[in-house]
Amino acid sequence: MKILITNDDGIYAEGILCLANALNKIGDVVVAAPDRQRSATGHAITMHEPLRAKKVKLFEQDFEAWAISGTPADCVKLAIESLMTSKPNIIFSGINDSPNLGTDVLYSGTVSAAIEGAILGYPSVAVSLADFRNLNYEYAAEFCCDLATKIMQNKLPADTLLNVNIPNCPKEEIKGVDITTLSVRKYKNSFIERIDPRGDVYYWLGGEIIKQKSIQGTDTYSIQNKSISITPIHFDLTKFDLIDRIKEWKISL
Amino acid sequence: MKILITNDDGIYAEGILCLANALNKIGDVVVAAPDRQRSATGHAITMHEPLRAKKVKLFEQDFEAWAISGTPADCVKLAIESLMTSKPNIIFSGINDSPNLGTDVLYSGTVSAAIEGAILGYPSVAVSLADFRNLNYEYAAEFCCDLATKIMQNKLPADTLLNVNIPNCPKEEIKGVDITTLSVRKYKNSFIERIDPRGDVYYWLGGEIIKQKSIQGTDTYSIQNKSISITPIHFDLTKFDLIDRIKEWKISL
Repeated sequence: MKILITNDDGIYAEGILCLANALNKIGDVVVAAPDRQRSATGHAITMHEPLRAKKVKLFEQDFEAWAISGTPADCVKLAIESLMTSKPNIIFSGINDSPNLGTDVLYSGTVSAAIEGAILGYPSVAVSLADFRNLNYEYAAEFCCDLATKIMQNKLPADTLLNVNIPNCPKEEIKGVDITTLSVRKYKNSFIERIDPRGDVYYWLGGEIIKQKSIQGTDTYSIQNKSISITPIHFDLTKFDLIDRIKEWKISL
Repeated sequence: MKILITNDDGIYAEGILCLANALNKIGDVVVAAPDRQRSATGHAITMHEPLRAKKVKLFEQDFEAWAISGTPADCVKLAIESLMTSKPNIIFSGINDSPNLGTDVLYSGTVSAAIEGAILGYPSVAVSLADFRNLNYEYAAEFCCDLATKIMQNKLPADTLLNVNIPNCPKEEIKGVDITTLSVRKYKNSFIERIDPRGDVYYWLGGEIIKQKSIQGTDTYSIQNKSISITPIHFDLTKFDLIDRIKEWKISL
């Protein structure tokens, strides 16, 4: 099994190394990841400048690794189209160093890389460790190995990927595995206004989340209850059930 | 009616000026757009550095205009949260200087700005002129005025936006207005490999589209047939009909 691994925290992030080391035990790993932090890049791709791909040695590991000057989505495209000598059987993006839950997946480079994998026709998984401090990727990486095997056995339908969030705690403390929907996450007071040393205003995206009662069945609920959340994701943004309604508006030239 | 206008081609693009001039006749326009070309940024947001917003005068126009150092999604967030003195009634993103059809909307900064508007709870529209050369925005801008009025009359349901593509031709040649689904667009030979003057390899995203018979009812079909395409779009990426199926995989810790 050939496994392509990418992320959005950059190739030297701890999460991708843990994941690659774990998946390397069950398959032939190729890492192709951004050469620096590229969080919150959404589904950006690089069209207006060229990309560079540099072969790097990730510490003492024996797998092929490429540091790429682009976004997570670029990395998946470039690895598959130009860098890999054979096509992957599966793509993993992560392990991200914070959660990717609910509406936030729209902004996520981690999830976008997996969406790109699915667009190109490969079974793809985005994985995040759902915490911000004192992260321990060990069990999450182990879980990914089992999940990869499950996906290979069961086949993921075309144009679908999995978004996985894993609690940051030892296996013994995790309650279970839930198949979930994406929650709705809203933020308030998004921008902090400050004055720079030259007296000019600048704005910094803060984003305090608006606390809402989390709904059972959603990814946020599962994570709050210390379960692993797996959400099947698609990328057809058509709102089918509105087509007839908007036809009734009788928009004309 | 207060109208917020943004784009991804940058505040000095011809498309946004035409759109702002047209909408200014039916409402009170505020422009808040990237200070430079930000195409294909997807739903990127700027979290790791501050944003600047500079008030600019767009030629001889009398509306408020802000050039922002961020992405299209940043512009919508910042305008609404910090720059505008009152909230908009509607948000337009465009007029983009090329089509945004089918799967490509995932990469589109134009569409992402409108998605951000919808996330924040405002009726939002992404508009693109579906051509690459000799663009004439005049009728497209006029159509947006009528569409804004229609949206105000009919109300767009929450968490939905409209993605509009308009043929690049005089009104007389346009066949009609279709309410469509997003098509599937796939690309081949995505990267061109070249050697730089120092002998090093670089890659440039090309992306020749794989020609497929376009399916009636899709945005691509309408544009090929010289009709305006309006697609209702949502942003809940949950693939609901797969949840039960993946539960059957019995994934465990």
